[in-house]
Amino acid sequence: MKAQPPSLLSDCQILIVGLGLMGGSLALSLQGKCKSLLGVEINEKVSKFAVENKFVNEVYTDLQALPPVDLVILAIPVGAIIQALSDLGNCITQPVVVMDTGSTKQAICQAMENLDEQFDPIGGHPMCGKERLGIQNADPTIFCDAPFAMVPLERTSERAKNLVSQLVHEIGSKGIWLDALTHDRWVAAVSHVPYLLASALTLGTPLESSMLIGSGFRSSARLAATPTSMMADVLMTNRDPILHSMEKVEDEWHLLYKMLADHQDGALIEYLDQAALRLNSMLKGDTKE
Amino acid sequence: MKAQPPSLLSDCQILIVGLGLMGGSLALSLQGKCKSLLGVEINEKVSKFAVENKFVNEVYTDLQALPPVDLVILAIPVGAIIQALSDLGNCITQPVVVMDTGSTKQAICQAMENLDEQFDPIGGHPMCGKERLGIQNADPTIFCDAPFAMVPLERTSERAKNLVSQLVHEIGSKGIWLDALTHDRWVAAVSHVPYLLASALTLGTPLESSMLIGSGFRSSARLAATPTSMMADVLMTNRDPILHSMEKVEDEWHLLYKMLADHQDGALIEYLDQAALRLNSMLKGDTKE
Repeated sequence: MKAQPPSLLSDCQILIVGLGLMGGSLALSLQGKCKSLLGVEINEKVSKFAVENKFVNEVYTDLQALPPVDLVILAIPVGAIIQALSDLGNCITQPVVVMDTGSTKQAICQAMENLDEQFDPIGGHPMCGKERLGIQNADPTIFCDAPFAMVPLERTSERAKNLVSQLVHEIGSKGIWLDALTHDRWVAAVSHVPYLLASALTLGTPLESSMLIGSGFRSSARLAATPTSMMADVLMTNRDPILHSMEKVEDEWHLLYKMLADHQDGALIEYLDQAALRLNSMLKGDTKE
Repeated sequence: MKAQPPSLLSDCQILIVGLGLMGGSLALSLQGKCKSLLGVEINEKVSKFAVENKFVNEVYTDLQALPPVDLVILAIPVGAIIQALSDLGNCITQPVVVMDTGSTKQAICQAMENLDEQFDPIGGHPMCGKERLGIQNADPTIFCDAPFAMVPLERTSERAKNLVSQLVHEIGSKGIWLDALTHDRWVAAVSHVPYLLASALTLGTPLESSMLIGSGFRSSARLAATPTSMMADVLMTNRDPILHSMEKVEDEWHLLYKMLADHQDGALIEYLDQAALRLNSMLKGDTKE
């Protein structure tokens, strides 16, 4: 008799593909919350570091010759996720839930639709991170109270949704169910555009003035340090929503410029007061205009 | 025989006008580093809090009837600094060094030029703060390793420059000598424009998407919460440098938009790599293009 696939996270053998900042942090955060943790990592140094520091029980160098697992988490850049999804069918033949952690969901969910039927795919996106990547910066606390988007496909089983929901709860994040299109639009506004703004600010600031950089500029420009190796795929798989959000911010920029240039000081103060109030609402999670 | 005015900070009686975030933090940071600390604060609750929590030895409600002091620090909004500078002559008749902590320097230094001759004025600007103002958020560590612009006038004595230099050293900041015009141009780029960008980002982001706000957006938008009560005067006394810096950031924004829209992915990656490298240089203090 074939064993039933587990419906509790604590009974799952979990495979994390990619032990960078995200995969490493997930591994630390899932310690003791699942049956066992395995990793796939092509970089030998990283793989050695992961084993020596007990991030996972075992690390494999590729997707070939893996032991049976119940949940695969793809914690690699978006382009690599799409590539891995097309490779998985050759490596895994038993039933398995597959989740990714990529920053865009439409292109990934489309690739997930094409998976063979042993796969039970679901999109995932933890809204956290650091501008310094790599397993040496792994930190299980990045998930605490962070939103975690869960993006099911039509083919996603209730069991898969339930497992991912348990995982999100166990790592301390706030789960949010979304469809891929809505996810990509929202994330363009709250994540990709802030990254581009930080880059534009950095390149638009004269180097000599950096002698006066304080905590304000550091905070505003921080995201510009995020490695392009991660962001390039993200931008290229979310072009239209990002362009749309860029236009919205530029409209606000023009309003601000005009008020300041035309000495419309009352209107300028009102505008800035509104921004302060709105930020407050947004951070409290008020989502009604 | 008249006593010589002190040339050591430790011999100075210091008066801090305004016990908000900045004045309160300075008071905490200067504990034990000067002869005594007095405060002027018009808000009764704040004044009571300052005395009860030993921020200063004594608090006065206005500039009238003050005991003799050696150094006056104006830690109030820019407009109030300019007003206080025109009132000081009626209240203080003995020789005194006057420093401010305002975020723009040209308008303030111009007002300082008009002070009576008992005053020895010098501009100051600690490049630190928090978006939550008020004495209850005072924190002496905000000065640690932060740049502190020191802006002498032609009439500023060597003694005043030396005293302010000692103060900057004692609170743990990095002193930078600048003229008022250079200060205002640089600070437009590294402080005022980041604040406006945060406001534009906040108002350009759909409220519904705030469910996905993570650490990235929080960091990028943080400055938008800075109270307009502090920022309005700053913007209005630094209009032209800010408009110029806004144009520079918009130029970069257009470049980014075009590369993304036109699928110039190689150029886009190169641009973003440059931004990451440049930010790194800026934060390390490399100031050569």
